[in-house]
Amino acid sequence: MADLTHFDAEGHAHMVDVSDKPATARVAVAEGWVKMTSETLALVTEQRAKKGDVLGVARLAGIMGAKKTAELIPLCHPLPVTKVTLGLTPDPDLPGIRIAATVKTTGQTGVEMEALTAASTAALTVYDMLKAAEKGMEIGGIRLTLKEGGKSGRYEAPK
Amino acid sequence: MADLTHFDAEGHAHMVDVSDKPATARVAVAEGWVKMTSETLALVTEQRAKKGDVLGVARLAGIMGAKKTAELIPLCHPLPVTKVTLGLTPDPDLPGIRIAATVKTTGQTGVEMEALTAASTAALTVYDMLKAAEKGMEIGGIRLTLKEGGKSGRYEAPK
Amino acid sequence: MADLTHFDAEGHAHMVDVSDKPATARVAVAEGWVKMTSETLALVTEQRAKKGDVLGVARLAGIMGAKKTAELIPLCHPLPVTKVTLGLTPDPDLPGIRIAATVKTTGQTGVEMEALTAASTAALTVYDMLKAAEKGMEIGGIRLTLKEGGKSGRYEAPK
Amino acid sequence: MADLTHFDAEGHAHMVDVSDKPATARVAVAEGWVKMTSETLALVTEQRAKKGDVLGVARLAGIMGAKKTAELIPLCHPLPVTKVTLGLTPDPDLPGIRIAATVKTTGQTGVEMEALTAASTAALTVYDMLKAAEKGMEIGGIRLTLKEGGKSGRYEAPK
Amino acid sequence: MADLTHFDAEGHAHMVDVSDKPATARVAVAEGWVKMTSETLALVTEQRAKKGDVLGVARLAGIMGAKKTAELIPLCHPLPVTKVTLGLTPDPDLPGIRIAATVKTTGQTGVEMEALTAASTAALTVYDMLKAAEKGMEIGGIRLTLKEGGKSGRYEAPK
Amino acid sequence: MADLTHFDAEGHAHMVDVSDKPATARVAVAEGWVKMTSETLALVTEQRAKKGDVLGVARLAGIMGAKKTAELIPLCHPLPVTKVTLGLTPDPDLPGIRIAATVKTTGQTGVEMEALTAASTAALTVYDMLKAAEKGMEIGGIRLTLKEGGKSGRYEAPK
Repeated sequence: MADLTHFDAEGHAHMVDVSDKPATARVAVAEGWVKMTSETLALVTEQRAKKGDVLGVARLAGIMGAKKTAELIPLCHPLPVTKVTLGLTPDPDLPGIRIAATVKTTGQTGVEMEALTAASTAALTVYDMLKAAEKGMEIGGIRLTLKEGGKSGRYEAPK
Repeated sequence: MADLTHFDAEGHAHMVDVSDKPATARVAVAEGWVKMTSETLALVTEQRAKKGDVLGVARLAGIMGAKKTAELIPLCHPLPVTKVTLGLTPDPDLPGIRIAATVKTTGQTGVEMEALTAASTAALTVYDMLKAAEKGMEIGGIRLTLKEGGKSGRYEAPK
Repeated sequence: MADLTHFDAEGHAHMVDVSDKPATARVAVAEGWVKMTSETLALVTEQRAKKGDVLGVARLAGIMGAKKTAELIPLCHPLPVTKVTLGLTPDPDLPGIRIAATVKTTGQTGVEMEALTAASTAALTVYDMLKAAEKGMEIGGIRLTLKEGGKSGRYEAPK
Repeated sequence: MADLTHFDAEGHAHMVDVSDKPATARVAVAEGWVKMTSETLALVTEQRAKKGDVLGVARLAGIMGAKKTAELIPLCHPLPVTKVTLGLTPDPDLPGIRIAATVKTTGQTGVEMEALTAASTAALTVYDMLKAAEKGMEIGGIRLTLKEGGKSGRYEAPK
Repeated sequence: MADLTHFDAEGHAHMVDVSDKPATARVAVAEGWVKMTSETLALVTEQRAKKGDVLGVARLAGIMGAKKTAELIPLCHPLPVTKVTLGLTPDPDLPGIRIAATVKTTGQTGVEMEALTAASTAALTVYDMLKAAEKGMEIGGIRLTLKEGGKSGRYEAPK
Repeated sequence: MADLTHFDAEGHAHMVDVSDKPATARVAVAEGWVKMTSETLALVTEQRAKKGDVLGVARLAGIMGAKKTAELIPLCHPLPVTKVTLGLTPDPDLPGIRIAATVKTTGQTGVEMEALTAASTAALTVYDMLKAAEKGMEIGGIRLTLKEGGKSGRYEAPK
């Protein structure tokens, strides 16, 4: 059975020792969405035309959230990210906003948590910006879609 | 059409003026889940027996995450929360972990974002603790279920 | 001669006791500018047309910076701000960007430092966004223009 | 015309990918000043004799501010600084305090923003320490004076 | 037997609900020391003469540490402190530095943890400043000496 | 006489230049304890049986505290830790809890402060979790027991 690396032999939580792992190039991509009514989504697309940029604020929040990952996730190693991009796209079929976050680093551990935290923080910010219009929005579909680099190799989520 | 309060008349983002709102008792409850295979869920329930407490770590992360809300969400007002509780329950039918976060304050704005941030941070931490076993877990169902206090009154999500 | 309140009788730095001051409404407005060449300023105004929003990013940074004031300024009292707005205006005569920050709270101390920190952080972010085009930009004119509330009363800077 | 590297082809803000840049030695020096009346400046120089050390507090704030740069500037890469020094000098001709900040690292991006943030934070702290005596002080002259290392090479500001 | 209020009926950690407690004046005083050789202590007292102010740096660190308490102690309520003072006194009989921290607020919970965190952070900083001279220093005697305000009333430690 | 490296020739505090030091493997171990009555200690050991895990919460706080070291200690270099473990052991002879913290990195400076901060933060958290039962607990014995790596070589504290 798989081991949970965040616990030692006695079952105590610890930050895993990665001292002897080589620093290699790492990439992770995570995605998620915020589901809302078509009326609320229209606010986003119309506001953008008027320069009230919901997606621009959420994008920045996601980028800054990636930098806070090791403060939020207790056993996460701190590491200096070398790239963070957030894509936020209105999807009338959801209806809502689709979010994708890409994070890179050269380091001893992967950046999956950074990408997931960026996507989550952007989603929470979309909710915050729009909650005056609709409280019933839902955040979901937050998952890792790609991971490269490190000993465990490439992971790509099934579509 | 509903106004997006986080933008001023020119469409510029701002932190809304709540100076003249009275400080009243506020509650918010948010929920979410982390979906995983039954095998991964078994790791959580078995590990707990062995004291490697995935849910305990995620619970603390959620509580501490609630305190970081105003740092993460750009236009969120800072306010001193007076209660944070996190419930994390294994659900074999999901299968996965169900999360509920309750936050209280006495203040000029609500604590919806604090509750949603607590639930999200706990969910991300569950993912982090278990990702060595399964990378394909998904975080979803993050939504506000209850809000009380303030001028806009009580909101309860439909089941 | 005026006393420096941040030092005690022995000359040791301390965070002044404001426990017995009443919580009253407070406002502070600060301003500043970033001076650049007309060519660099054109990048800002043109980019905005193309949605690459230098001023939008700087505005958010200023709002979030206001929330970090008590972490940055050692002897500053923490207090929950109730409003933060940032105005950023291209000025072809400077040439550059003029910044104005308004902060409000209901508290036992003023929010001058929050307004000044918001203006400074926005100015630094303007620099960061444009430094690939011009390293010689200068930040200046950072000063308090208005302060209301509290025992010391209203202060308005000479024009 | 120069590109603004903090935006992608569609004009969306992102944290630039520096993954493939080599880690090289970097230095940046920034300066600034706080202008005040001669009476206020006398408080600084006299207080120092009495051990109430305005400049010592501001120096520390500047050093700690440098470490917070990536939290304050949204698109700034986090990087571990290897040296931070702050010089604060009373200048009776200004009259006021002149500030110089030097920051070093070995990394994939420069430390201009760290040096400018250090100088700004020190200036804001000088203001905070002295504002009981004079609210009309002004912070200015914040600019990069030297930058070394990295592909874009050496930059030295004109005197 | 006394209840541990930080756990609910099921034994899960939570941030206790203080919503219904009145906001009252609170004071806490904590103390501690850093023990070192007389030679190291001489460095402190001599350096001070030369303006290299070990105690001044540690004092600021303690004040700023008090403001970080709710980030460090997982179940601690955030609250805006209204006064923080740190006393650091060389004691040739220890030999070493004696530290006392006083914190005040008007709030729904006490500031014991803020005072203890201030004293601890100041002690750690004294260690950091002097560790080039002596690695064997010891931090101890960290305890609450006074607490006033709140339902549980006054507590004064035995001498 | 030993030099205090945190001050320059003029006695001004600075963050020492470590740019030219090689990045080498570093380890530091620190210890400490929280002394309490046997009755309070019994609460810890009994609560653990009931899943109210005082030591689990303190362990996490220590790990997260290690990551905050450079924010707390003014002149400390930021560096990404690669391992943090905390041991917390009830000792009926103290009576109380004994704490040991181990931190590793590959870097240009040591991790003594990270290990000491981890131990201190865990100790403060033990106090916080138990203060409802006993206010007179004392934190002490905080010291470095082992340091390896770097130019100054191995240090081991006498027993």
